[in-house]
Amino acid sequence: MSKVIQTCWILGLTLLLGCQQETPSKLSSVPQKDFISHQVIEWRLATSWPKNLPGLGMAPERFAQLVEQMSNGRLVITVYGAGELMPALSVFDGVSNGTIEMAHSASYYWKGKAPAAQFFSSIPFGLNAQQMNAWLHYGGGMELWEEVYQPFGVLPLAGGNTGMQMGGWFNKIIASPEDFKGLKMRLPGLGGEVLKKLGGVPVDALAGRELYGALQTGAIDAAEWVGPYNDLSLGLHQVAKYYYYPGWHEPGSTMEFLINQQAFSTLPNDLKMIVKVAARAINQDMLDDYTQGHIAAMDVLLNEHNVQVKLFPNTVIRALKYARDDVLNSEAAKDPLFNKVLESYMANEKSVKRYFSYTEDALSRFELDDKNQP
Amino acid sequence: MSKVIQTCWILGLTLLLGCQQETPSKLSSVPQKDFISHQVIEWRLATSWPKNLPGLGMAPERFAQLVEQMSNGRLVITVYGAGELMPALSVFDGVSNGTIEMAHSASYYWKGKAPAAQFFSSIPFGLNAQQMNAWLHYGGGMELWEEVYQPFGVLPLAGGNTGMQMGGWFNKIIASPEDFKGLKMRLPGLGGEVLKKLGGVPVDALAGRELYGALQTGAIDAAEWVGPYNDLSLGLHQVAKYYYYPGWHEPGSTMEFLINQQAFSTLPNDLKMIVKVAARAINQDMLDDYTQGHIAAMDVLLNEHNVQVKLFPNTVIRALKYARDDVLNSEAAKDPLFNKVLESYMANEKSVKRYFSYTEDALSRFELDDKNQP
Repeated sequence: MSKVIQTCWILGLTLLLGCQQETPSKLSSVPQKDFISHQVIEWRLATSWPKNLPGLGMAPERFAQLVEQMSNGRLVITVYGAGELMPALSVFDGVSNGTIEMAHSASYYWKGKAPAAQFFSSIPFGLNAQQMNAWLHYGGGMELWEEVYQPFGVLPLAGGNTGMQMGGWFNKIIASPEDFKGLKMRLPGLGGEVLKKLGGVPVDALAGRELYGALQTGAIDAAEWVGPYNDLSLGLHQVAKYYYYPGWHEPGSTMEFLINQQAFSTLPNDLKMIVKVAARAINQDMLDDYTQGHIAAMDVLLNEHNVQVKLFPNTVIRALKYARDDVLNSEAAKDPLFNKVLESYMANEKSVKRYFSYTEDALSRFELDDKNQP
Repeated sequence: MSKVIQTCWILGLTLLLGCQQETPSKLSSVPQKDFISHQVIEWRLATSWPKNLPGLGMAPERFAQLVEQMSNGRLVITVYGAGELMPALSVFDGVSNGTIEMAHSASYYWKGKAPAAQFFSSIPFGLNAQQMNAWLHYGGGMELWEEVYQPFGVLPLAGGNTGMQMGGWFNKIIASPEDFKGLKMRLPGLGGEVLKKLGGVPVDALAGRELYGALQTGAIDAAEWVGPYNDLSLGLHQVAKYYYYPGWHEPGSTMEFLINQQAFSTLPNDLKMIVKVAARAINQDMLDDYTQGHIAAMDVLLNEHNVQVKLFPNTVIRALKYARDDVLNSEAAKDPLFNKVLESYMANEKSVKRYFSYTEDALSRFELDDKNQP
């Protein structure tokens, strides 16, 4: 007798025997777990982050907790940090070939497989967290993301946001666009391509924990990582002179949950929905965590470590912005799918930035000006 | 034989009979609903909005759908629009006294019961949506909200956000703070108190659908409602000359789910978690819906209706901001709990606005300036 049939018999008999006795009148007190414990599904989720890294690493742990609690233990997802099951940047392949059912990562890592993937993390001078979420969930973004990952058998869900990242740590004053010439900077993705346009040398093969040493030895002149919440713990303020702003390269970095399509399709409908809604809740939860973590860490950097926070001059920001348009257009010319996503993204960017110019941006501009009043 | 025992017998027999045949090897295809359909819990949720109003009214409908799907039909929540079960602003009492299990509303409506409640919707020149969510979920805000509602037996959950609201529709030019003198404006809550400080006459007894007539007849000179997504459908552009910005009175209006504590405590743990996580997902979903809805409606207002969008002069914004500080301080002097929440809110506001001055606000300020470059 197969295990399934065996379990089925035991359940049936248990029910029949149980029915001989008086059943309790509170329906909700019937021990549900007994009915459904034979249906435990176990999944493995690998991340691109060190286990339990604040922010990035905690989001998949919380996701797994929510799923387990909402499913009453029927879907148990074990989370593995980078390197525990596979290298940090092998998780997409792992999900695609079914070695693991899920991963937590960032879409711009897959630009070699699908250049259009980069839009679903963050692009220079692009959408902030609120604007990204609106585009993804009500502006057609998720449908495009699914289209980009479809050939790999991977289903994407938005999986958190770091908020706008800082401009990075520098050991050199940036006073004009010329100062980027020859600058070796840890700056992955499209931001790196923009830097290259201005004569800089982007380095993207460094993991977060290697940045301290690379800045200390002068192997690189500058590095961006995330923002105060993660940067403070790496100690970057000890080996770099200036913390630059505003960040321009990743205005609202979206993370992702990756799900093997075949595994997802075998879930019953309630568990499918539990996975999707848990991801949606974590998508906001990570941003809440980061926002609060950033402001606390920024207070520490400013008050305890006297970090020198420097503003990029407007000429620099402008040069970077024009370079990003060049980069986007040349990528679009090479790849039709990149071009398709670019068109949707840009139509949205134009419209949402106009709206923000009447709302949040207008009020914050007043407040910035007002603070500097005599 | 009671219904429960009957159902139980049928279930047991069905299982035993089913086991005689080859069971499918996929565990997930066992029809779960049969095991648990006898445990249906039915709740009623009343809102303060017209049934299915875009944004505000859709969020509780979507919430109920998520809960029903995730619970596999074990928790069914029926949503009632304003007036269907009780008047729009009776829903807090309804939840408190257990007439209904849940409501969807906005906390500033309860300022008469608990002045501190106003912080959990939005206060003039306060936190935007991202900042509110961070304060609520990682900065101690939710714990304070629970404390404020505890005496009423009501459990609050954040239930969506409209994003920053627009400054309102005016039939009069606002060129200086003097122009508010005698101005009759629909502006509820603390925003109305601020207007009063400048000599204006706040009107808060008007429902959304009454604004058109009130502006048309001159009963009021100005009105703010939400923003383009809802304002366009009310036709306010047909009866008011100018659409003012930036909004200053509600920079990130948070909505709320209210739950009767007693009803919540009787749910099994998995359903408790399903309710909380569904609310968290909807909290973001409404903001996504509003952001995309606002930008589409703003395009229509500008391109098809040639709406005149006007900027409040800095002198006006500054006068409003200083008046808000007066209002907050005088409220705090009257109510210790208001003062307690104010202190938490203000410490957070100061810190998060400094952080934003290095990130989003700095970049958006550059972009606003850059657009006006020759």
